[in-house]
Amino acid sequence: MLTIHHLNNSRSQRLLWLLEELDVEYKLEKYQRDAKTGLAPVDLKAVHPLGRSPVLTTENVSLAESGAIVEYVVRHYGNGAFAVPEEESRYQQYLFWLHFAEGSLMPPRVAMLVFSKAKQKVPALLRPLAKKILDGIMDAYYKPNLIQSLKFTESHLQNHAWFAGTEPTGADVQMLFPLETLVAMGQADDYPAIKAWVKKIHDRPAYQRALEKGGEYDYA
Amino acid sequence: MLTIHHLNNSRSQRLLWLLEELDVEYKLEKYQRDAKTGLAPVDLKAVHPLGRSPVLTTENVSLAESGAIVEYVVRHYGNGAFAVPEEESRYQQYLFWLHFAEGSLMPPRVAMLVFSKAKQKVPALLRPLAKKILDGIMDAYYKPNLIQSLKFTESHLQNHAWFAGTEPTGADVQMLFPLETLVAMGQADDYPAIKAWVKKIHDRPAYQRALEKGGEYDYA
Repeated sequence: MLTIHHLNNSRSQRLLWLLEELDVEYKLEKYQRDAKTGLAPVDLKAVHPLGRSPVLTTENVSLAESGAIVEYVVRHYGNGAFAVPEEESRYQQYLFWLHFAEGSLMPPRVAMLVFSKAKQKVPALLRPLAKKILDGIMDAYYKPNLIQSLKFTESHLQNHAWFAGTEPTGADVQMLFPLETLVAMGQADDYPAIKAWVKKIHDRPAYQRALEKGGEYDYA
Repeated sequence: MLTIHHLNNSRSQRLLWLLEELDVEYKLEKYQRDAKTGLAPVDLKAVHPLGRSPVLTTENVSLAESGAIVEYVVRHYGNGAFAVPEEESRYQQYLFWLHFAEGSLMPPRVAMLVFSKAKQKVPALLRPLAKKILDGIMDAYYKPNLIQSLKFTESHLQNHAWFAGTEPTGADVQMLFPLETLVAMGQADDYPAIKAWVKKIHDRPAYQRALEKGGEYDYA
């Protein structure tokens, strides 16, 4: 039996969607972020030494890192669904998006989130200066990077229904978290195809079931 | 014929190591970072719309994202070397490290680099305050994350010669860049197994050839 160790408002929500789509039986262990720091609770360390979510456990193993978990679930439990056969030319596209989601898209999204929280925490008097410094870093490095990634993603979705083929695959699962946070935070106005793609997933019955089971989730 | 579009002092250096190990013929197109901003030059955009390095081109395709490129090269040009067969249990370990390198390890490493450059750019008078703000963000978020990742990596290398088996694989290629920057910047004193692993790779004739061909590289 699979167990998903699931943190509220986190990267693990997309895995519930995948498991519901594949109609796989699984147990859900829920963890709650620290109300003050927003960090994952220490008891996740008992499940995997990295202490992060998601973690997927079976009788034998404890697996971390979203991209690797998606590949594992699709290979072992998909019966061909949500997978792309290695011999098809779109397999490389599948791998690209699977890596791109966390390798290129998430780091600047996380930086934006971390910076905006930091600006709120700074004493009011120093806030203009903190804003100047952090916006400077954002504009010089993270933002151009993020905009480039989003434009590239948007242009792919303008010409394709899904990330790697005519049906959703593991690549769509992996891309969901960064893109649904973008839409939920009202930052997707320049990206109508991304918006439509997120809505299309949110409308699926499997996604609705995942949402109900996962509990608190601010991005849907 | 493969062409690697290679940026000095960048993530693409590890791909040269892989190609030299596999004894694959390839062309090298070199790009130079902007001396002032450190950013990639705009002509990389002609090769791939993301405008980043590495990019690998063949007669038919233009591939980006290191992890996806490593998987492509190993599958198409490895003849079994640097690969892990899907049916072996260590395949999941292979996938984990392949995703972990850019998904978990690089984001806090990049943040450290970006923050330390930003501190130097701030006018001298404001520097103590900038330091306080940026160190605060680092300590609250990126650093605990990075230390956890490095401890986990160190403990794996204390018990294994390579990341996914008894010989180097694509996982080692992907893990090389974050770990060799760590060692080169003198930040690996607490991680002797990581240091030894990097040295072991740097001593390989294929790595030496890659270094000679790649040109300017500050991390070896």
